[in-house]
Amino acid sequence: MAELVKVVVDAMGGDNAPVEPIKGAVEAVKERTDIQVILTGRQQVIEKELAKYPDYPKDRIRIVDASEVIETAEPPVYAIRKKKDSSIVVGLNMVKKQEADAFVSSGSTGAVLVGGQVIVGRSKGVERPPLAPLIPTKDGVALLIDCGANVDARPSHLVQFAKMGSIYMEHVVGVKNPRVAIVNNGAEEEKGNALVKETFPLLKECQGINFIGSIEARDIPAGYADVIVCEAFVGNVILKLYEGVGATLIKKIKEGMMSSLRSKIGALLVKPALKETLKTFDASEHGGAPLLGLKGLVVKTHGSAVAVEIKNAIYQCVQFKQQKINEKIAERLNEPAKQE
Amino acid sequence: MAELVKVVVDAMGGDNAPVEPIKGAVEAVKERTDIQVILTGRQQVIEKELAKYPDYPKDRIRIVDASEVIETAEPPVYAIRKKKDSSIVVGLNMVKKQEADAFVSSGSTGAVLVGGQVIVGRSKGVERPPLAPLIPTKDGVALLIDCGANVDARPSHLVQFAKMGSIYMEHVVGVKNPRVAIVNNGAEEEKGNALVKETFPLLKECQGINFIGSIEARDIPAGYADVIVCEAFVGNVILKLYEGVGATLIKKIKEGMMSSLRSKIGALLVKPALKETLKTFDASEHGGAPLLGLKGLVVKTHGSAVAVEIKNAIYQCVQFKQQKINEKIAERLNEPAKQE
Repeated sequence: MAELVKVVVDAMGGDNAPVEPIKGAVEAVKERTDIQVILTGRQQVIEKELAKYPDYPKDRIRIVDASEVIETAEPPVYAIRKKKDSSIVVGLNMVKKQEADAFVSSGSTGAVLVGGQVIVGRSKGVERPPLAPLIPTKDGVALLIDCGANVDARPSHLVQFAKMGSIYMEHVVGVKNPRVAIVNNGAEEEKGNALVKETFPLLKECQGINFIGSIEARDIPAGYADVIVCEAFVGNVILKLYEGVGATLIKKIKEGMMSSLRSKIGALLVKPALKETLKTFDASEHGGAPLLGLKGLVVKTHGSAVAVEIKNAIYQCVQFKQQKINEKIAERLNEPAKQE
Repeated sequence: MAELVKVVVDAMGGDNAPVEPIKGAVEAVKERTDIQVILTGRQQVIEKELAKYPDYPKDRIRIVDASEVIETAEPPVYAIRKKKDSSIVVGLNMVKKQEADAFVSSGSTGAVLVGGQVIVGRSKGVERPPLAPLIPTKDGVALLIDCGANVDARPSHLVQFAKMGSIYMEHVVGVKNPRVAIVNNGAEEEKGNALVKETFPLLKECQGINFIGSIEARDIPAGYADVIVCEAFVGNVILKLYEGVGATLIKKIKEGMMSSLRSKIGALLVKPALKETLKTFDASEHGGAPLLGLKGLVVKTHGSAVAVEIKNAIYQCVQFKQQKINEKIAERLNEPAKQE
């Protein structure tokens, strides 16, 4: 039998805790036999919630008590330092001590990012661990790397992002020879800000990645590249604008559909088909965002995540572990410079 | 009678030239009596196209012959220098010599931006002229400033953008006391890259603008601010991602609607209402993007602009002139520092 992959799930994190994280955990261990979930958080609360599910393999869900909760509004660095018995700190410590392989949380992004770096720690050779969510494209997904909290990256960081992102897309998401592009303000080679201009030739020379050049933001949703390399400030703008334009447009479409009797009848008829199509353009369907380059895996799910996203994030962790992504990243980032 | 506002329209620029620019010009002079349009480009081509419209006030459309055309792919600086007899250079020179008040083009963005700065020239006190398109929001529009070709701005540039943008939104678009926000990767005051962190306190202290703080990209389409201040690289990403997410989402919705017989029937019923609603979320409805801070007005319309956008851009120029925007900008940027 395959070795169990041990995933800690923060039972207290996110808008829908503890209900949805626990539901996602239960569904994961019911569906697959190679997973053990450790739920961190207030034991009594978790026990009460788990009691709703009589029918699941009880030996594969464990509770580890953590009396504190880090709120989204708390300053991350301070929260991680003070709340030693929070579900996040307790969970990350288990990954650090190798009692678990991965940690999944819908809680405070800042705390998860800071905690991941401070508690779990960077892998050897990693200059800056990027947060890399999958974003929907016309016919699939792309990895947007970096959307983390540390902005103003250096060119060498972006090159590492390209390498780590390629490994992740190839071995976790399953895209063969993923196309890597750098976000730019034009397709021509003379375009770019200082960072992009400095990074472009480094990516061009970089062995072992499939660098296809610059990508304009317009072409990201169209799916022109699989690994979208950018500095975290720009990545944050892209990620959040994706959500914002999508939400506003869908709101307007709903308004339009409700504007006359004729269109209301039409809306009833198109609704099921539309819902199905829009689901493929919904980021939450694709699990969480991994924080790459750490000594273990940390995955940040949306604050509004429901069970299916938690479950998918757990599966992501299994794939990550079984595909030895951290070993592959370490090998790739620490390989000696080629002599030619 | 009010003084005629003289607007040069590049009859050769854009994907739909000469048909659409000329149609837009004809419609503008037919609808309003305070406009004179000067069409620049190949005289014979323009005359032939104009001949299709027997019924318009002929004294208010003039042709100025320009034998060359700058193509979109040409390097802008070189093109402006070499093609002295292009529709863009001839048009911009008319603004420079004050033979016209404004220039509208759907041609090469780079050439229009470079030409605007090099030929028309900056107003006194303007450090960097920003390109500022209007982008659709849930219930209106916002001014995205800067989306120009010069990236890596300094804090003082962003402060000038906030001032110029406020004047434009108030007096051209008609938004009273427009809310100014700076694009940031979080709402908290400690967030930001180096540029934003340096600019934030300057905007906070700046008199005469209604600064409301940081805006996350997610909240731009929701309409949380009227003047969206950012550095041009970020502005470019926002502008193009707006287009990209919108286009991909609408494509997916159409696919969804065509996926079953039931939904096809529904699609027929919702179509008219939907079209009307989506029109309000279409950037081209809002005329062109002004290049602010020049000694005249230069407006860049979409490469794919049709007549209605050209017409709206011409009206924008009239409003700009009649509201004395350049005088207001000059006064605002050159006022002595307040002593308190």
